[in-house]
Amino acid sequence: MSKKLLSGCLVLALGAGYALTAFSQAKPEVLVKQRQSAMTLQLKYFLPLALMAQGKVPYDASVVTRNAAYLEVLTKMAWDGFVEGTKGEKTRALPAVYADPAKFKQAQDQLHAAVGALGAAAKGGNEAAVKAAVGDVNRACGGCHDNFRAKQ
Amino acid sequence: MSKKLLSGCLVLALGAGYALTAFSQAKPEVLVKQRQSAMTLQLKYFLPLALMAQGKVPYDASVVTRNAAYLEVLTKMAWDGFVEGTKGEKTRALPAVYADPAKFKQAQDQLHAAVGALGAAAKGGNEAAVKAAVGDVNRACGGCHDNFRAKQ
Repeated sequence: MSKKLLSGCLVLALGAGYALTAFSQAKPEVLVKQRQSAMTLQLKYFLPLALMAQGKVPYDASVVTRNAAYLEVLTKMAWDGFVEGTKGEKTRALPAVYADPAKFKQAQDQLHAAVGALGAAAKGGNEAAVKAAVGDVNRACGGCHDNFRAKQ
Repeated sequence: MSKKLLSGCLVLALGAGYALTAFSQAKPEVLVKQRQSAMTLQLKYFLPLALMAQGKVPYDASVVTRNAAYLEVLTKMAWDGFVEGTKGEKTRALPAVYADPAKFKQAQDQLHAAVGALGAAAKGGNEAAVKAAVGDVNRACGGCHDNFRAKQ
């Protein structure tokens, strides 16, 4: 690939805290921005399902199927941003994230399982099963939000 | 689902600009945050591929496969956030986004096509084909970044 590449997406990145030779060593503020972006999108696609489950908006099977599939992918994206080097950043992540990584990982795993079950329920097409699965995902969200995140 | 739901993800959202009864009417600043989050994650997963294509970091087929799959999903997420109601927000989106929606849509479609081709190349496992596809994605990024986004 030619140097023309640098005129596209990449040139932006080079000024934004990304290291060229060691991408995995992205700056702490970048890691925080990335993990918060994942959470923002998890909420974007989960909230309509939660509102459907509560009867606040009409049930829409096509939105359920799409959002559940998106959530299965998005749920994989935040975790590598929780590294010790980000402890100094202004975020709501509590020290427990780094002090009790096994429990933090367990909470992640529970969310993965719940989101996977939601995806399966969405494919199954049973509205009651979907709504129950949405509740389980919500509780799994709480597994981190209750124990690893400051309330405000 | 019980009201217990409100103790989880959702209670956060209710204070963050989301309308309960008309979710599609999320506040402009929320739509901007969501679309910027998608772009942040697109960059997170595209940059390593661009660096590989340039030979700046070692080629890693497993990262290529994973990131290409993520990008196929992420590329679907930003567009519904570009609505007229967000024109007053402080972003780098140019008026052309709303003045020339057909051209903006065409640029989106080109990115979808390029990212789809990257996904296919990643599955094919041919390193040269992947690197060429990465270049095509980068050019497709430019289709919006050159015409629909302020330089700084």
